[in-house]
Amino acid sequence: MELNVYLAGQIHDDWREDIRSQARKLDLPLTFSGPMENHDRSDNIGEEIYGDQPDNVFKDEAASSINNLRTQILMQKADVVIALFGEKYKQWNSAMDAGIAAASGKPLIIIRPRNLHHPIKELANKAQVVVETPEQALKALAYVFEEY
Amino acid sequence: MELNVYLAGQIHDDWREDIRSQARKLDLPLTFSGPMENHDRSDNIGEEIYGDQPDNVFKDEAASSINNLRTQILMQKADVVIALFGEKYKQWNSAMDAGIAAASGKPLIIIRPRNLHHPIKELANKAQVVVETPEQALKALAYVFEEY
Amino acid sequence: MELNVYLAGQIHDDWREDIRSQARKLDLPLTFSGPMENHDRSDNIGEEIYGDQPDNVFKDEAASSINNLRTQILMQKADVVIALFGEKYKQWNSAMDAGIAAASGKPLIIIRPRNLHHPIKELANKAQVVVETPEQALKALAYVFEEY
Amino acid sequence: MELNVYLAGQIHDDWREDIRSQARKLDLPLTFSGPMENHDRSDNIGEEIYGDQPDNVFKDEAASSINNLRTQILMQKADVVIALFGEKYKQWNSAMDAGIAAASGKPLIIIRPRNLHHPIKELANKAQVVVETPEQALKALAYVFEEY
Amino acid sequence: MELNVYLAGQIHDDWREDIRSQARKLDLPLTFSGPMENHDRSDNIGEEIYGDQPDNVFKDEAASSINNLRTQILMQKADVVIALFGEKYKQWNSAMDAGIAAASGKPLIIIRPRNLHHPIKELANKAQVVVETPEQALKALAYVFEEY
Amino acid sequence: MELNVYLAGQIHDDWREDIRSQARKLDLPLTFSGPMENHDRSDNIGEEIYGDQPDNVFKDEAASSINNLRTQILMQKADVVIALFGEKYKQWNSAMDAGIAAASGKPLIIIRPRNLHHPIKELANKAQVVVETPEQALKALAYVFEEY
Amino acid sequence: MELNVYLAGQIHDDWREDIRSQARKLDLPLTFSGPMENHDRSDNIGEEIYGDQPDNVFKDEAASSINNLRTQILMQKADVVIALFGEKYKQWNSAMDAGIAAASGKPLIIIRPRNLHHPIKELANKAQVVVETPEQALKALAYVFEEY
Amino acid sequence: MELNVYLAGQIHDDWREDIRSQARKLDLPLTFSGPMENHDRSDNIGEEIYGDQPDNVFKDEAASSINNLRTQILMQKADVVIALFGEKYKQWNSAMDAGIAAASGKPLIIIRPRNLHHPIKELANKAQVVVETPEQALKALAYVFEEY
Repeated sequence: MELNVYLAGQIHDDWREDIRSQARKLDLPLTFSGPMENHDRSDNIGEEIYGDQPDNVFKDEAASSINNLRTQILMQKADVVIALFGEKYKQWNSAMDAGIAAASGKPLIIIRPRNLHHPIKELANKAQVVVETPEQALKALAYVFEEY
Repeated sequence: MELNVYLAGQIHDDWREDIRSQARKLDLPLTFSGPMENHDRSDNIGEEIYGDQPDNVFKDEAASSINNLRTQILMQKADVVIALFGEKYKQWNSAMDAGIAAASGKPLIIIRPRNLHHPIKELANKAQVVVETPEQALKALAYVFEEY
Repeated sequence: MELNVYLAGQIHDDWREDIRSQARKLDLPLTFSGPMENHDRSDNIGEEIYGDQPDNVFKDEAASSINNLRTQILMQKADVVIALFGEKYKQWNSAMDAGIAAASGKPLIIIRPRNLHHPIKELANKAQVVVETPEQALKALAYVFEEY
Repeated sequence: MELNVYLAGQIHDDWREDIRSQARKLDLPLTFSGPMENHDRSDNIGEEIYGDQPDNVFKDEAASSINNLRTQILMQKADVVIALFGEKYKQWNSAMDAGIAAASGKPLIIIRPRNLHHPIKELANKAQVVVETPEQALKALAYVFEEY
Repeated sequence: MELNVYLAGQIHDDWREDIRSQARKLDLPLTFSGPMENHDRSDNIGEEIYGDQPDNVFKDEAASSINNLRTQILMQKADVVIALFGEKYKQWNSAMDAGIAAASGKPLIIIRPRNLHHPIKELANKAQVVVETPEQALKALAYVFEEY
Repeated sequence: MELNVYLAGQIHDDWREDIRSQARKLDLPLTFSGPMENHDRSDNIGEEIYGDQPDNVFKDEAASSINNLRTQILMQKADVVIALFGEKYKQWNSAMDAGIAAASGKPLIIIRPRNLHHPIKELANKAQVVVETPEQALKALAYVFEEY
Repeated sequence: MELNVYLAGQIHDDWREDIRSQARKLDLPLTFSGPMENHDRSDNIGEEIYGDQPDNVFKDEAASSINNLRTQILMQKADVVIALFGEKYKQWNSAMDAGIAAASGKPLIIIRPRNLHHPIKELANKAQVVVETPEQALKALAYVFEEY
Repeated sequence: MELNVYLAGQIHDDWREDIRSQARKLDLPLTFSGPMENHDRSDNIGEEIYGDQPDNVFKDEAASSINNLRTQILMQKADVVIALFGEKYKQWNSAMDAGIAAASGKPLIIIRPRNLHHPIKELANKAQVVVETPEQALKALAYVFEEY
């Protein structure tokens, strides 16, 4: 058995590579996908494909239509969704992805620093598992493959 | 025909009353529901029902289980979801509710100030309608009832 | 028992009033809904709600988001969809509505002039009933209420 | 990861070969399917399998039942649907396929010349991505495979 | 609480009136629907609405499209389906209706003479309740309303 | 707004009447349903409708087919499911009903004495709310109706 | 692309082998499954697994529970269902399987002798394709693989 | 064809190894999964991943969130669910898993000692097959692979 894992969340540091390298060390049969991690490319992909837009709102709408195409395709292929939340940024797309995962019956793991417990409480309650570090999320997935 | 409208979003000002009163003025056959608007009660409902919790994380988990029960029941009764986003607060529960609405095929209207266009772009792209004011959201709903 | 009927199709003549008046004559317990029949209003509703748009493509996108909100809400309330096709116009929104009805398990009746049989053949094959006149469509619905 | 792409749209020129050859050049892991591109065979397949039909309406109904069998099977296998619209023909089956894709939660990309924006506006609003050329559609799919 | 009950099965005797009158006697809050019970009308409804057909196969196809429209609408409104099978006739439409009910999660009650147990065994196994008489079927429904 | 509440659980004491009377006191717009509370009738309903069975296993299978018909119909009508677990009895049907509610997206409240936390832990984790007394369950439902 | 085809219908002659051998000749990438074709084994499988049953009705119920397990598993794996109907036998399980296929969105091909058109008319109307011979059914499937 | 089988039920003896070894002897193409069979690890996995919990109720809640993650992932991958019930333990998680399987359309086989027939009667009635020994369950699965 192999599992596809979608890694929702911010794209400003390398937490996904962290998860990938730990999965390799533990030799877990996991395949990862996620949003475009090149931030500029993610912001500009709309104009790159559609051409110049009238203003920044339309530029964002153009980019988000391509980014959501990617997310829709990759999340439909995923067996599990991991969503990471941090101190910075609005992260509304991550919260939306988590909501979509929960509503679609996809198993959902949320990673968040403990001190964010208050603003994330309703979202955390919708997740199957809520942890503080990528290590803990991987331990939970490793457990799925143990002894069967 | 009558429509049930769920009003997702922050509970720190009276935007919902704004919407309700305009709907009354326009005489639209709309019934509204939404989260508990008494902020303290929303935060304390967990301990009120379950009793004291070991710490604030567990207190929040307790409260969110009751708040989510309310949201789950009311959103399943809703024909349309309006989600309002503002400058303040994390508003992750609103983003989650919007994601759940989109994933469940519920028509979704997002209200947000124009200057938030960048962080909300993927969420906006999932909504059927994205406007800046409650007035616009109500105009869109009024249009559903016109001339048929 | 009462049935909600969504009337998809062009809005350039009064075929819907035709159907409504015949239903009244036959005293059938049918409630009708459909797209905005005021053509100018349907085209301008986007700018009316969102304000001026940069060009006609964006104006159309704005209008269609409101028109689709209306259709999504009304079709979810409908027990049956009647889609009328004629000689004029592209009528792609009608074909899309018919496809959505079929894919959602909504009973679908198509009205089309006989000579259009070739271009509409795959769409006709997806419908439960394909007729040439509004009268025939209503006869089919009247049959649902007979002798039970 | 490999994606199955269904190519809905007219079968009078070789736009699908265009897409296939560009996908090969970009070395994208895409598998394509679509309707029968031999136009005569598509029109006659009903009589070929069922035998002669009483008139052209029945001939069309016979053909469309086989064409829709093909589309139903291939679209259920597809991860993404691309629908192309052009100046000529009614293209109602393409609009229906696009509607079915949207209603089934299949990611949908529409290709259409810019000047068709008005008649296609509601359909375009239902798609995740709307572009003008096959090249743009492929760029959007290539983006799904980038950097993850 | 009131229940809509669809009565699938042959239309050659008055078993449905039997059920209706017993429900009235027991004062059960049941509303019944079912196929057209006027056999000639059921056979001719296609030609009545579409006009003359080329031969009897096409006449039957025309009639069945209208009969299935009726069944589709009424079964979607039903909370329970009762399907009666007897010694005579093929009754394939009844078996199909029962299959559709089972696959759609509609509670299904089958009435059949005991001696038909062998040919009906797989169908009986899909039903929630299998009895021999309309009286027994009504007793089962009466039980739903008892003491709560 | 009115809510239908299905009360799953053992039928050996009057906990349901407890809930009903408190709901009346609080004047909550709740309608309750549940399994047959007359224990002998629940055990014998199979033989009463089908006649004598060969042995007790078949008697039980006969009874359970009728009891499950009742549960299937009433749970499909329910907006919320409350499942109560106590010290005595296997209560596997209650656990099954709770599992079905969770898998069907029905909001689920579990009532159980605190000391049962270990054997019920996976089931509790699937519920939206887990409390110790009927009073607490009703408080949670009352909260749904507050201030909106 | 490879397709799984479930072959519903009677098990008294070798029509399935007919289909399989023609598929091999045409070199079509089809994998077939179907009910147990050994008639005695199909009738006795219940007692073989559960032990002796009190009478023939219970023997049939026992057998059908195992036969339906097989059908449920294999039909869920199928991309297409072919159901064959002949002059002999009740064939209610075939009609049920066809109804389940239609209700589950599985493409359905019915094979029936032309003279059965009247009793099968509603069932035929639910199928995507209705033919008279296994050869025709295979031609329809071969068409799915042509020129793409 | 290969089938994934989820083995729900208690983890205090080696009944799963029994099933696995018999499947190997019969050379059946079955892949098995199930809950963590190391009982201590299953009880402690919550604290191992989340850290120490305030008391045993929270410890159980922590463990069950990880155990349910495992079950949710593995049951979504399963083609068939086998649930075994014995004399000892509450086994509510097994009954819940069985309910979830039934509600999700997963074929369900229950194994239980004959003398448990009374408390398990409603659950048994929801299963497709109910047997007394693992051998019988495997015979039922072997039958799915016979002669096709």
